[in-house]
Amino acid sequence: MTTSEAPQQSTREYKVVGTRPVRPDGVEKVTGRARYGADINLPGMLFGRIKRSPHAHARILSIDTAKAEALPGVRCVVTHDHLPGASDEIVDLGETVSPYKWILDNTLASDKALYQGHAVAAVCATDPHIAEDALELIEVEYEPLPPVLNVHDAMADGAPLLHEGMRTVEMVARFVPGEGRGERFTNIASQLEFEQGDPAAAFADADLIVEGEFETAAAHQGYIEPQNGTAQWNADGTLTVWVSTQGPFVARATLSRMLDIPLSQVKVVPMEIGGGFGGKLPAYMEPLAALMSRITGRPVKMYMNREEVLIGTGPTSSTYVRCKLGAKSDGTLVAAEATLAYEAGAYPGSPVGAGATCMFSSYDIPNLYANALDVVTNKPKCQAYRAPGSPQGTFAVESLMDQLAERLGRDPMELRAQNAAREGTRRADGVVLPTIGAQETMQAAIDSPHYRSEIEGEYVGRGVSMGFWTNAGMESAAYASLNSDGSVNLSVGSVDIGGQRAGLAMQFAETMGIDYQQVRPQVVDTDSIGYTHVTGGSRVTYATGIAVHEAALDVRRQMEQRAALIWETEPEQVAYGDDGIIRGPDDQQLSFSELCRKMQQTGGMIQGQADVLPNRPGPAYGCHIVDLAVDPDTGKVDILRYTAVQDVGTAIHPAYVEGQVQGGAAQGAGMALSEEYLYSDDGRMQNASLLDYRMPTALDLPDIETILVEVPNPGHPYGVRGVGEVPIVPPLAAIANAIHNATGLRINQLPASPTRLLDALLDDAE
Amino acid sequence: MTTSEAPQQSTREYKVVGTRPVRPDGVEKVTGRARYGADINLPGMLFGRIKRSPHAHARILSIDTAKAEALPGVRCVVTHDHLPGASDEIVDLGETVSPYKWILDNTLASDKALYQGHAVAAVCATDPHIAEDALELIEVEYEPLPPVLNVHDAMADGAPLLHEGMRTVEMVARFVPGEGRGERFTNIASQLEFEQGDPAAAFADADLIVEGEFETAAAHQGYIEPQNGTAQWNADGTLTVWVSTQGPFVARATLSRMLDIPLSQVKVVPMEIGGGFGGKLPAYMEPLAALMSRITGRPVKMYMNREEVLIGTGPTSSTYVRCKLGAKSDGTLVAAEATLAYEAGAYPGSPVGAGATCMFSSYDIPNLYANALDVVTNKPKCQAYRAPGSPQGTFAVESLMDQLAERLGRDPMELRAQNAAREGTRRADGVVLPTIGAQETMQAAIDSPHYRSEIEGEYVGRGVSMGFWTNAGMESAAYASLNSDGSVNLSVGSVDIGGQRAGLAMQFAETMGIDYQQVRPQVVDTDSIGYTHVTGGSRVTYATGIAVHEAALDVRRQMEQRAALIWETEPEQVAYGDDGIIRGPDDQQLSFSELCRKMQQTGGMIQGQADVLPNRPGPAYGCHIVDLAVDPDTGKVDILRYTAVQDVGTAIHPAYVEGQVQGGAAQGAGMALSEEYLYSDDGRMQNASLLDYRMPTALDLPDIETILVEVPNPGHPYGVRGVGEVPIVPPLAAIANAIHNATGLRINQLPASPTRLLDALLDDAE
Repeated sequence: MTTSEAPQQSTREYKVVGTRPVRPDGVEKVTGRARYGADINLPGMLFGRIKRSPHAHARILSIDTAKAEALPGVRCVVTHDHLPGASDEIVDLGETVSPYKWILDNTLASDKALYQGHAVAAVCATDPHIAEDALELIEVEYEPLPPVLNVHDAMADGAPLLHEGMRTVEMVARFVPGEGRGERFTNIASQLEFEQGDPAAAFADADLIVEGEFETAAAHQGYIEPQNGTAQWNADGTLTVWVSTQGPFVARATLSRMLDIPLSQVKVVPMEIGGGFGGKLPAYMEPLAALMSRITGRPVKMYMNREEVLIGTGPTSSTYVRCKLGAKSDGTLVAAEATLAYEAGAYPGSPVGAGATCMFSSYDIPNLYANALDVVTNKPKCQAYRAPGSPQGTFAVESLMDQLAERLGRDPMELRAQNAAREGTRRADGVVLPTIGAQETMQAAIDSPHYRSEIEGEYVGRGVSMGFWTNAGMESAAYASLNSDGSVNLSVGSVDIGGQRAGLAMQFAETMGIDYQQVRPQVVDTDSIGYTHVTGGSRVTYATGIAVHEAALDVRRQMEQRAALIWETEPEQVAYGDDGIIRGPDDQQLSFSELCRKMQQTGGMIQGQADVLPNRPGPAYGCHIVDLAVDPDTGKVDILRYTAVQDVGTAIHPAYVEGQVQGGAAQGAGMALSEEYLYSDDGRMQNASLLDYRMPTALDLPDIETILVEVPNPGHPYGVRGVGEVPIVPPLAAIANAIHNATGLRINQLPASPTRLLDALLDDAE
Repeated sequence: MTTSEAPQQSTREYKVVGTRPVRPDGVEKVTGRARYGADINLPGMLFGRIKRSPHAHARILSIDTAKAEALPGVRCVVTHDHLPGASDEIVDLGETVSPYKWILDNTLASDKALYQGHAVAAVCATDPHIAEDALELIEVEYEPLPPVLNVHDAMADGAPLLHEGMRTVEMVARFVPGEGRGERFTNIASQLEFEQGDPAAAFADADLIVEGEFETAAAHQGYIEPQNGTAQWNADGTLTVWVSTQGPFVARATLSRMLDIPLSQVKVVPMEIGGGFGGKLPAYMEPLAALMSRITGRPVKMYMNREEVLIGTGPTSSTYVRCKLGAKSDGTLVAAEATLAYEAGAYPGSPVGAGATCMFSSYDIPNLYANALDVVTNKPKCQAYRAPGSPQGTFAVESLMDQLAERLGRDPMELRAQNAAREGTRRADGVVLPTIGAQETMQAAIDSPHYRSEIEGEYVGRGVSMGFWTNAGMESAAYASLNSDGSVNLSVGSVDIGGQRAGLAMQFAETMGIDYQQVRPQVVDTDSIGYTHVTGGSRVTYATGIAVHEAALDVRRQMEQRAALIWETEPEQVAYGDDGIIRGPDDQQLSFSELCRKMQQTGGMIQGQADVLPNRPGPAYGCHIVDLAVDPDTGKVDILRYTAVQDVGTAIHPAYVEGQVQGGAAQGAGMALSEEYLYSDDGRMQNASLLDYRMPTALDLPDIETILVEVPNPGHPYGVRGVGEVPIVPPLAAIANAIHNATGLRINQLPASPTRLLDALLDDAE
């Protein structure tokens, strides 16, 4: 894809950072040698399959596994009763904070099945086909219950309740579910309110108010590699698990808890990952594989088929957002208000809080109110999906910004730039923004060749949208081992989902003043590196990058000491330079590689190590510009040109940053135009295949141009901001705004599929 | 086996050290789950086999591989010409220091085959049987040359020369082969002389002189698992190798050198090892597997059969030792002299220097001379075997000590104790002995129930012998990662050949003041830990133990800092106690596990790391007592009772220490009684199977009683000395002395096989 770059705003000169070397895992992946979860095969291995509920909501009256167990080749059948004792205790498994009961119930249903596809039993057998046959022999007696399939029905008086006895939790900060204090039993799991200034007064004082209701559909992360997991229980109470996961340490915590063994006795080996995008943070297969391995004493391998991925794992939320913006006649935003109701699926925990936080964060709005509701429905428990919650809320705000510009007769980007958030702006959740690139991003969009170009033609339009993501810090470890030939082995615990090995090796090389090729990075298992949080939240290049940088500094200090020994001087007399030269008194000097050669004779090879918990991830902004054409006869949208502008802090490896930006934009375009879960009235997904669940293909999208703006994050030694999540945020509103520009129609319900758009065009024509 | 323990001489009280917990790798091994080299199977894997010379000495005139290459299924055939350019440069591959040319030539012969079994070509094919068939199709034209098969023939004037142009190197310290300065071309690769005091004068002044000539046969290490290696060359120039080795970092250095790729791009994954005893230090299969993987682009697996192990890998040296001891009439040793000629096999590098160093080290002898000759012969290049070189030289000295006691009418142990080496005694190689347990070991033997018991019966006798080994230090790394539940993952690079995982985890637990069960140790690959020298030289529990101890101290320091943060005080106000309790001001305290639970919220989990190069390995002594009966009709020896006394410093895990002592004694008994390489006149091994090469079985040996003496090594925090090697040293002389005691015959040539002993008995009867 073509790429144009804005001039670097960073003033530092780097040797490695900013270059575009080949990734270390590239050759293995293109030659088919890289090992994914499904490539694991062990002697005596059994194959596990899952029996799933056909009902969206049903009481489970009985499960009879006798016939399945009698099938030759079947080694065990497990149901909820085989899981360790449930409790209401809140557990923190790293990524997930939840009552333990819900985690168990989503692993295998207990008294009720809460969505079509809900696992009710698992079987393992000597052969995957036997296991498949055995599923048919498991007899489950259900009492079907009326399902609730959207937030409106779920919140209605007298709605069927998913969790009898659940009251709404009023939240303050991070969502920790517990005993709600609401007046009645409800499907609203929690309510989170943000308020700043005096929104009511500000609205009263506004010259102009725009408002609307917006809805988005559930979209799946669409990773190509289905969930999998292979577990080998050993007779000494230790467990090894091979799995495709974004969070090996989360998987370890889950397994340790579920099987009641110490963390050190669970080894999670993260395999190469064929996409995750948030959907591979939770553990689906590995607890069942481990449980059945413990029962049978044999390794158990499990993997989903595509239908199971779609019905049995969590997509993002379906959402409803009502939003209102107030401005002065000069365009200054003065007030904003929103109510967000996000579907969590069967168990509480939608990203509605993040949605409320992010939707307004592109702008400096002094008076704000947001009311965020987490609502359970009879659908799969939603899971994280790239900037979870932000695209949906942002769709509302950015659609209204477009209306505001139209009403004021203003250029939509100029209006945005006028109101841009800046250092010191307070986010909806009260956090004060540090050094950010919102204005720079908007300006780069305004100055871009794309935005300055003209569009023409009937049913052709242009739209823009901003997008924001907080980015995450969290814990990371790194371990570097020097070799006598000046090469370095670098171990990290962050699974590589988008070039992280390269980006981390580059930061290490930069800090050491050596070449990228001297550093060989690897992702190791949970036994072999310190606790490292998930690959997600766009945190790895930032936080694990800091760990790698600190490990390099640790090496530098030790090399100074070693050189001092060799030169018979004090370490204070020796300095390791950024150019990789160690300098001492009397113009003595050694290069990194020269000192490596002398190490074994002077005290042994050196290793560097660091564990960090950084807390200054740079929040990031993107601005997307889209030109599209609407076919008035079919409602089909063709994207003609697409430009994604983004403040990336410092692009460690610009090619992979561009790849992240392009990938996010493509996924956002899917949410805007074609991707949605279609349900029958009784809650059965109607399009559970990749033929019917329609993700954009290469034929659906033009080259996505990228413009990287670099406002370094002062919280990282090289200025890194997370880059992977922001780009999925703007496409929804940008495309909806472009459709309006092309047709005059406001599409407030996404995706703007041909059917929906044609209906609107026909309605409009009437 | 039964075991009696001497009272601990260590005064420190330990919680974990000295206990006998189950080893972490035990269950995997007994349930067949542990993965050995031959368990590796990769998609598309090829199988490699080696074509070996049938001649002990022959010029290679031509090798025609065309027919083999034409066989369907054969993917490549390699000969010496495929190896990277040979050079005379001396290379240090960790364990091996040698001209690079010799390493290459022993991998695949160049102009000459120097022993029967010498590899001349390698082939790989899609199936091991096809590879085997292809060997027959490789046509090698030889010009047979007369072989030299013992040191006498090799050193004789006009002997056929193995390496035309080789002159004797006169050595001073460590053997670094190079350009010799001897007058003539020779098979004597090097000469090392030790001299202390004035031996000539001391002998002249001695009241009594005993002397003799002694010979021992080559013995194989006899590991049950044959050599193997699987290599996967990747298109990006990286290499992964799975191998059974004692030295993964040596293998890495060898592969890096032979394939000319950086160390960081070679990942050596050490598999579980089915015995090594020194024989798995060098790399045999993995360079050829790697070379053929690079050529074919596919993984290549290689493994030897038993015959190949015996003819193609290195046993210990055959040796000749002429030795003389001089004493005063009161038994005081005043002078010693020895000439040692050890066979190196086809390429220089026998352990003759270690033999000369160790043979006298049990005693305080002021005047010494040793002349150590390294001699090449047409046999496999000898390799390390448990206390390499020491059993053979010691056999001479300890046989002579027995004669001396007999001549003086003294108790053989009392005479030894009178002359025992002590702190300050200078070894033959000039090193001054530190705190040692020679006297304590001798005294424990004298006081033992065995030595105090009576023996009776015709042809029944008792013998004793001392044994010494220097033990090694060298480099080790350790990495420890704490978990929130108070468990710890501990990574090391030392292959586990005898319970090292347990012994290292115990030292870590002791230092942290936590339970052994809280620590889960693992052996990781060369990418994942700092440089760690071989598992050998009895160095792991000592040197890697120090690394583990230092890593624990690193953790303790960090935990003190963390507790200070929590208690809002200075780290100096906080102390981590040996009981695993962190104490601060105002009686505040936290246990290790309590602080682990608080870490993630207070800055992240902690990791500890250390790399060490310790240089105070405690030299160690053993004293063995053996009772045996000789069958005068067959010459068969039955060992009736066997006791091994040994100073082990501190026994970290006494059961595994006992196992080492018993195993070493068993192997020494094999060298004394039955194990030997039998050659035809043209240099072909006549007994290349474990049926004909006769190692002792459980039926050949009684329970070996062990007495552990504990004189802590001040060079290790818990007093560890190496324990694995000493016990193979005394059996040769102890058994020979017992045979003398039983029969009146001095057996100066080992093994004392039934044939040889019967001949001697018949000669004696004539």
